[in-house]
Amino acid sequence: MNIYDVSKKAGVSIATVSRVLNGNANVSEKTRERVLSAIKELDYTPNVFARGLGLNTMKAVGIMCTDSSDIYLANAIYYLERELRRFNYNAILCCTGNDAGARKSCMQLLLDKRVDGIILAGSQFICRDAGVDGYDYIIEAARELPIVLVNGRLDGNRDGCRLYSVLCADREAVCSAASQLIEAGRRNIVYLYSGTSYSSLNKLDGFTDAMNQAGLPVRPEYLRQCTRDIAGARGSLEALYSSRMPFDAVIASDDMLAVGAVKFAFAHGIRVPDDLEIIGYNNSVLANCTEPELTSIDNRVELVSTRAVRLLIQVLGGGSAPPLDIVAAELIKRNTTKF
Amino acid sequence: MNIYDVSKKAGVSIATVSRVLNGNANVSEKTRERVLSAIKELDYTPNVFARGLGLNTMKAVGIMCTDSSDIYLANAIYYLERELRRFNYNAILCCTGNDAGARKSCMQLLLDKRVDGIILAGSQFICRDAGVDGYDYIIEAARELPIVLVNGRLDGNRDGCRLYSVLCADREAVCSAASQLIEAGRRNIVYLYSGTSYSSLNKLDGFTDAMNQAGLPVRPEYLRQCTRDIAGARGSLEALYSSRMPFDAVIASDDMLAVGAVKFAFAHGIRVPDDLEIIGYNNSVLANCTEPELTSIDNRVELVSTRAVRLLIQVLGGGSAPPLDIVAAELIKRNTTKF
Repeated sequence: MNIYDVSKKAGVSIATVSRVLNGNANVSEKTRERVLSAIKELDYTPNVFARGLGLNTMKAVGIMCTDSSDIYLANAIYYLERELRRFNYNAILCCTGNDAGARKSCMQLLLDKRVDGIILAGSQFICRDAGVDGYDYIIEAARELPIVLVNGRLDGNRDGCRLYSVLCADREAVCSAASQLIEAGRRNIVYLYSGTSYSSLNKLDGFTDAMNQAGLPVRPEYLRQCTRDIAGARGSLEALYSSRMPFDAVIASDDMLAVGAVKFAFAHGIRVPDDLEIIGYNNSVLANCTEPELTSIDNRVELVSTRAVRLLIQVLGGGSAPPLDIVAAELIKRNTTKF
Repeated sequence: MNIYDVSKKAGVSIATVSRVLNGNANVSEKTRERVLSAIKELDYTPNVFARGLGLNTMKAVGIMCTDSSDIYLANAIYYLERELRRFNYNAILCCTGNDAGARKSCMQLLLDKRVDGIILAGSQFICRDAGVDGYDYIIEAARELPIVLVNGRLDGNRDGCRLYSVLCADREAVCSAASQLIEAGRRNIVYLYSGTSYSSLNKLDGFTDAMNQAGLPVRPEYLRQCTRDIAGARGSLEALYSSRMPFDAVIASDDMLAVGAVKFAFAHGIRVPDDLEIIGYNNSVLANCTEPELTSIDNRVELVSTRAVRLLIQVLGGGSAPPLDIVAAELIKRNTTKF
């Protein structure tokens, strides 16, 4: 049983069967159904290797991420894989770590596997220390197949590139949250962050936007970079506290760091939210673990991941898509803020 | 450039080149190096499709899990993928959810893809409600290719099956933790759990073992099943508390549920650990989020995952492996217990 039998049974061309198998949008619903029912009747399982050689698709999408055990990325992978499967695509997962060489070799490996497209999950692929040629491997790959960045952003308007970015409006979200703290009378706001990824720096910009809009000075001592764990965040606040720099609010670029802020306050008997307001980011399960529970910015990982896959499917089906798709975040108010 | 050129250059047979490419152990180190340097000199990239047709391997291992966003499973996937990549295997990830039909179709899909082996990550694949034929699809698949269960267990001693289980000694770990609470004078210990997976029921058995060994009655009201989230755990303890059933310790089958116990105690002004001792399971990041921080049983996800991959690589290389490999857990003492 092969594609010829399906084409004969359905009374359509082999090219049409191929288009249906590949999820191409340029097939009428009626034709699609005819092909699918022929496949069903004939109990036809497309052989992946034959398909690889003949139709040039494995119905597989590569997902690259730096660290699949990170809570945000684990959720992104979950939603990406789920959505890909809905469209009959498989996910080939590659975790690259933070090494630039590993990223390039993972990308090459996926190209060698002849996947249909690649999704880069997480903004760590677009970071300050990438250097001037740091994204060349992404742009080169995007000349071969469509690439979607989830929560990262690269200019997709280049000759022959199919490069798309789907992301959350992080900058606006942090700006809005900081503005609410300022309106509530907070003046000494600490911004706590760990990385220099695209999204991390975007959030930092959002914080300075809010301070600038309110005519408040942005003091470098209040922009605290720390290691990406509870102890790192807590230690950074301890240092500020020891040097007798007053602060009445903390915005963290990640819930993990906000947990460190709650722990810092608890250790010193500082009342949250009365004497210290704290806002986390990601609205992850960690936000529900602390006492009081964290107010957190929800960056809509499910929505962003789902839209990234739909965009890719559209492009793989021969359609076009905008190079940039931005989703609004949402502030989830719990008990570490008074507003 | 193809496998024949490599064989010619290295002065070995095509079968030997194939064995080296497939990570087969039955190749001397000297021969392996000769083949690898020939590959390097010729700049030979094995074509995945050609390899699929010719050598019958894609150098890919399927990972099936029920929910990649679960913290334990996200960590397992991370370590499995990392270890597979060390051996030049790719991970094809399939998340099945909890639907039995989806599990079977995911398995079939991986078989159709002709992966080299399959790892079932998480004990949810082996659960009470699977029914009498519930594992037939796993056993059938294990006649075609090697299957490794991570934290689940199926009898691998069947004709023509390559079925292996790598898991943590959950039962012994819970028994030991409960025994320590009993020795410390706790008599009214609640066991809090959510699922009926292999590992969940094993832990429950460990709890009853400890009670039996101490000659204490196992009261069904103190075996509390709840939904797998903070609110579920908390609600279950609230119900017990409202019905005036005294309890002085909680062992939870998952850190998430233990967080619910900490929140319950906080809400009622119950002192932890003085008036209530709490032990979680998994030693996840959640254990560090609460105040006080959770004592938790570490079920060694990194070690279990790494050993699962090494076992699979050994089998794929033509070697043999024991059907069962058990790793000991470790109790990580923090501040929700007094011992």
